[in-house]
Amino acid sequence: MTALNATLERIRPVDPVWIERARARQLELTKPPGSLGRLEEIANRLTAIQETLAPSADRARLVLFAGDHGVCAEGVNPFPQAVTAQMVANFLRGGAAMNALAGVAGLELRIVDAGVASLIPDIPGLIRRPIARGTANFCEAPAMMEQQARASLELGIEMAWTAEPLHLLAAGEMGIGNTTPASALTAALTGLPAVSVLGRGTGADEACMARKLSAIERALALHTRHIRTPLDLLARLGGFEIGAMCGLFLGAAARRTAALVDGFIATAAAALAVRFCPAVRDYLIPAHRSTEPGQAPLLELIGHRPLLDLEMRLGEGTGAALAVPVVRAAVAAFIGMATFASAGVAAAQEAS
Amino acid sequence: MTALNATLERIRPVDPVWIERARARQLELTKPPGSLGRLEEIANRLTAIQETLAPSADRARLVLFAGDHGVCAEGVNPFPQAVTAQMVANFLRGGAAMNALAGVAGLELRIVDAGVASLIPDIPGLIRRPIARGTANFCEAPAMMEQQARASLELGIEMAWTAEPLHLLAAGEMGIGNTTPASALTAALTGLPAVSVLGRGTGADEACMARKLSAIERALALHTRHIRTPLDLLARLGGFEIGAMCGLFLGAAARRTAALVDGFIATAAAALAVRFCPAVRDYLIPAHRSTEPGQAPLLELIGHRPLLDLEMRLGEGTGAALAVPVVRAAVAAFIGMATFASAGVAAAQEAS
Repeated sequence: MTALNATLERIRPVDPVWIERARARQLELTKPPGSLGRLEEIANRLTAIQETLAPSADRARLVLFAGDHGVCAEGVNPFPQAVTAQMVANFLRGGAAMNALAGVAGLELRIVDAGVASLIPDIPGLIRRPIARGTANFCEAPAMMEQQARASLELGIEMAWTAEPLHLLAAGEMGIGNTTPASALTAALTGLPAVSVLGRGTGADEACMARKLSAIERALALHTRHIRTPLDLLARLGGFEIGAMCGLFLGAAARRTAALVDGFIATAAAALAVRFCPAVRDYLIPAHRSTEPGQAPLLELIGHRPLLDLEMRLGEGTGAALAVPVVRAAVAAFIGMATFASAGVAAAQEAS
Repeated sequence: MTALNATLERIRPVDPVWIERARARQLELTKPPGSLGRLEEIANRLTAIQETLAPSADRARLVLFAGDHGVCAEGVNPFPQAVTAQMVANFLRGGAAMNALAGVAGLELRIVDAGVASLIPDIPGLIRRPIARGTANFCEAPAMMEQQARASLELGIEMAWTAEPLHLLAAGEMGIGNTTPASALTAALTGLPAVSVLGRGTGADEACMARKLSAIERALALHTRHIRTPLDLLARLGGFEIGAMCGLFLGAAARRTAALVDGFIATAAAALAVRFCPAVRDYLIPAHRSTEPGQAPLLELIGHRPLLDLEMRLGEGTGAALAVPVVRAAVAAFIGMATFASAGVAAAQEAS
């Protein structure tokens, strides 16, 4: 049995009894019923995931997977492919947006080379686990061989099985051109036409957008009839960092750890994880609404709304990092607030 | 010259040159232009408020003003009025939602009795500055005398002039029944009919809503023709904690400190502050979209959109507290990120 199959078999939906217990507790706390809105929903979900009325969100880690994409040869991105490796170096030196946001969120950061094409300089901290030096151009061939796709999933699963259990796991990504495979996956997962799930990514102009659409449509024409399983989807249309994020979500669910989903690329990986195993959705917390139009139909597949909408489109896990304090606030209120009885505060019904 | 007039004369709009400097700097940082969305807008505003390309959001304080409302005699709220004092005791003992959220946000908390009707037990930490033991019932008389309204503003102004300068000030409130004066103020500030700016507050049922609407309509019929100045508005329709929050916003602007605006009640106070002095809006950061329908037209008057929408309706400053890490993340990215040049990352234009 491979690690993938063992992981899928281990995943269980959360027990709705714990959601009910959490709701009953919320009603005892010194606030009008429901007045903390989505914070209550998040605390209730953490309660069910951790199976305790004293859940925690203290130990949080973001795993950032980097990978390159053969489809960049089609001119789908305004940045040169070498930027993937350059940005990995930037992450390792602490100079990227994600580093700044992880610092504010108190979020551990792990940087994983899941398949970068260019040379990454020797900087301490890099987890070197490249599956290959970039995917194949999916306009011409499957992006990955099946065993590569499986290896990318198992890399992510492995990164979820930390020595010490975590309360929150988040996935981030870096990969020049990766909105193109994410849009192709979105079209294949949702059945929507490519043009409706296509966005400007890092800032594509009209000519670049036309090349991007053409590349996705050619890939779908080439591969769709060969896709039967979620693994086929990933292998033919995905990427190493996308497979690794999908694996991280599967591993988080198998270990009963809540997983924060970042922007468009991470949401595509999360929707693919739900395709592998629907019960994964009980462990997913979409963090952030992306400006990419492909994310909304993926969120519908996952069945949760994102917590934040700050009009961001950066990836790296930046949206997930911003949601960490929101989740911690939800938990802090739930476990720290006094009850009407303990605080001597009159409840609403006493008024009438 | 009173402290109020001195404060109003001191307030200046921010210099747009600093916004331009911040925008130019954003373009140098290692991210696609504009990809941090509203985080960039917030960092640029902090830059202009503090007049430095190294702004800070470290030292943040939330001042929570409590006050009672004579209009509670009309049965506008399902909670008994005594809950205001009971909740102040709960804040002082650390058992309210706001305490939990302030802890997560690293936010100093000050609790001020601006005019609570019931006895507050002797618990260390309370700043006792009651202007009176609750306002008058505005269905029968002005809520406050003019000198009381002025005193409430000056209490807020005083709380903004901390010994050590702060980077972020936020206002919170507690006052059973205070969505009723806030809705009356909203109707008067916007010209909208009372029914369209009325919400369920802490959880009013249909009968309670009818009493609330009737109370607001009677108050508007009684007072509108006597209202000429922003001070008249506050005195006739407001409350002690609303005036104090308004004063805090005025004081923050006078001291060039960014001010986080919480939910519906705080937004009414902020819109009133903008009525006193339009340049105040340059210093306001609406934190949170309330589920109360009166907040949206007030936000239009202020001219900013809120950062978060978590379907909350609690007040206390809880929405403002959740926005603190977002503002800190915006600043951390702005001051901490590497530039394309320093990190050796190729910019987009080099691709074509």
